[in-house]
Amino acid sequence: MKIIEDISEMQRYAAQLRQNGKVVGFVPTMGALHQGHLSLMECARRESDHVVVSLFVNPAQFGPKEDYNKYPRDLKGDIEKVAAIGVDTLFTPTASQIYPEGYRTYIEVEGLSDILCGKIRPGHFRGVATVVLKLFNIVRPHKAFFGQKDFQQTVVIKKMAEDLNTDVTVIVFPTVREPDGLAMSSRNQYLSREERISAAILYRSLLEARLLFEKGEHSEDKLRDAITTTFMSEPSSQLEYVAIVNGNTLQEETDVQKGTVITIAARIGKTRLIDNIIL
Amino acid sequence: MKIIEDISEMQRYAAQLRQNGKVVGFVPTMGALHQGHLSLMECARRESDHVVVSLFVNPAQFGPKEDYNKYPRDLKGDIEKVAAIGVDTLFTPTASQIYPEGYRTYIEVEGLSDILCGKIRPGHFRGVATVVLKLFNIVRPHKAFFGQKDFQQTVVIKKMAEDLNTDVTVIVFPTVREPDGLAMSSRNQYLSREERISAAILYRSLLEARLLFEKGEHSEDKLRDAITTTFMSEPSSQLEYVAIVNGNTLQEETDVQKGTVITIAARIGKTRLIDNIIL
Repeated sequence: MKIIEDISEMQRYAAQLRQNGKVVGFVPTMGALHQGHLSLMECARRESDHVVVSLFVNPAQFGPKEDYNKYPRDLKGDIEKVAAIGVDTLFTPTASQIYPEGYRTYIEVEGLSDILCGKIRPGHFRGVATVVLKLFNIVRPHKAFFGQKDFQQTVVIKKMAEDLNTDVTVIVFPTVREPDGLAMSSRNQYLSREERISAAILYRSLLEARLLFEKGEHSEDKLRDAITTTFMSEPSSQLEYVAIVNGNTLQEETDVQKGTVITIAARIGKTRLIDNIIL
Repeated sequence: MKIIEDISEMQRYAAQLRQNGKVVGFVPTMGALHQGHLSLMECARRESDHVVVSLFVNPAQFGPKEDYNKYPRDLKGDIEKVAAIGVDTLFTPTASQIYPEGYRTYIEVEGLSDILCGKIRPGHFRGVATVVLKLFNIVRPHKAFFGQKDFQQTVVIKKMAEDLNTDVTVIVFPTVREPDGLAMSSRNQYLSREERISAAILYRSLLEARLLFEKGEHSEDKLRDAITTTFMSEPSSQLEYVAIVNGNTLQEETDVQKGTVITIAARIGKTRLIDNIIL
């Protein structure tokens, strides 16, 4: 496996791959890799000739009071995991290369970035859209793979990629879960043993809403109530929002139907977790 | 000369050119072509294997009270001019293809877009940066050519291209002028015969400032005063701003030196014109 740190080197290498007619699959990550990431890479492996994975904890998507500094980092462990999957190229730029002094250009995906998680984390999706476009320009993939767990992120990135004519196909892969249903996330590491048990409430509440829906309940309010009530049974949890939305526009769906997305954010202790389910 | 209207077709064709190892030179224009544009194309012709010119009057860079609707359009004349230069491909997308319904992604180059012309035309450089990035993604040029007349635009685009890792070399070509010194501009068509004569004041005032500088005057205030005074001699003109700035940062330069840029905007009657000179 080739490891590239330098942006220009990555760019030259990517141009070469394209020129040689290789289909390039790309999995951007912030490292601290878990099975969710690895499944994306396996999917990329199947669907491309050459797989590039990036490891970059993106400062631009963290708010000033957020966990940029304590975000888990494990370069050595990540390299081993990635190599075992058969990834071809690992790209590990530094923050000062991605955002050199005097950096001042940002991508805004209006109307999708300031709602749901974006309302609670102002600037977050601006940082996400910006770094993803930069990485697309550096790696020049044909296909890029993202996890469904970060649902709003996938909507923002798909819209950005389309609006800016990037010619990258954005592929969203289903959330990988722990045996008790908790969505895999690098932030699960923050949970104490007790919190880790409580955290299963997120997916449990979504499953209950889905069950109701499958029994014929199409009222947004009723589905929302079911989730809120489920959360009440878990005192260490604090529901931040429940949104029942159209999967492309993220607008609240009054007529809940097959394909509608229920997305939630909650705190378990101090750790903020998100999850979602497509009905 | 190949004429392409469709974005996907242009994208496929551009990918092919790259794959065949061609160096692609790109001149984005809003049409109503004059010798300034044609000189850019001749320069692109010399420096590339394949020259792509785009004609697109970009609604996103016009304010609601600006001249988008009356901006001069002459597709037939433009095609003849471009063909005569030996341009290889002319790209003429429609506004509804570039900004389809639901379009919502914009590029902000912070700190360079809200000063000088950007202060008077809010949103203008956001519209410019956005369309240029989109065109870069569609045409995938190695080099792109812009006229120095729109000086702030060249600074915004260079910064955007660099910050977003576009891998496009931005080349700025000197302003082409009429015999009396007026910078060529599609908007010169708006001038009446009397206004056209008065409009020479822009460049005349810049030349006077340069003469002073060459005689040893390095005071920003004195150079500014010289321009303001020159404009007073021309009653049909109204100076909008004079800025004496660093050519990379657009910050006011207190220590005027070789390489400092004097940039001005003025109205001649109702027509807004800009010009600049590099000392």
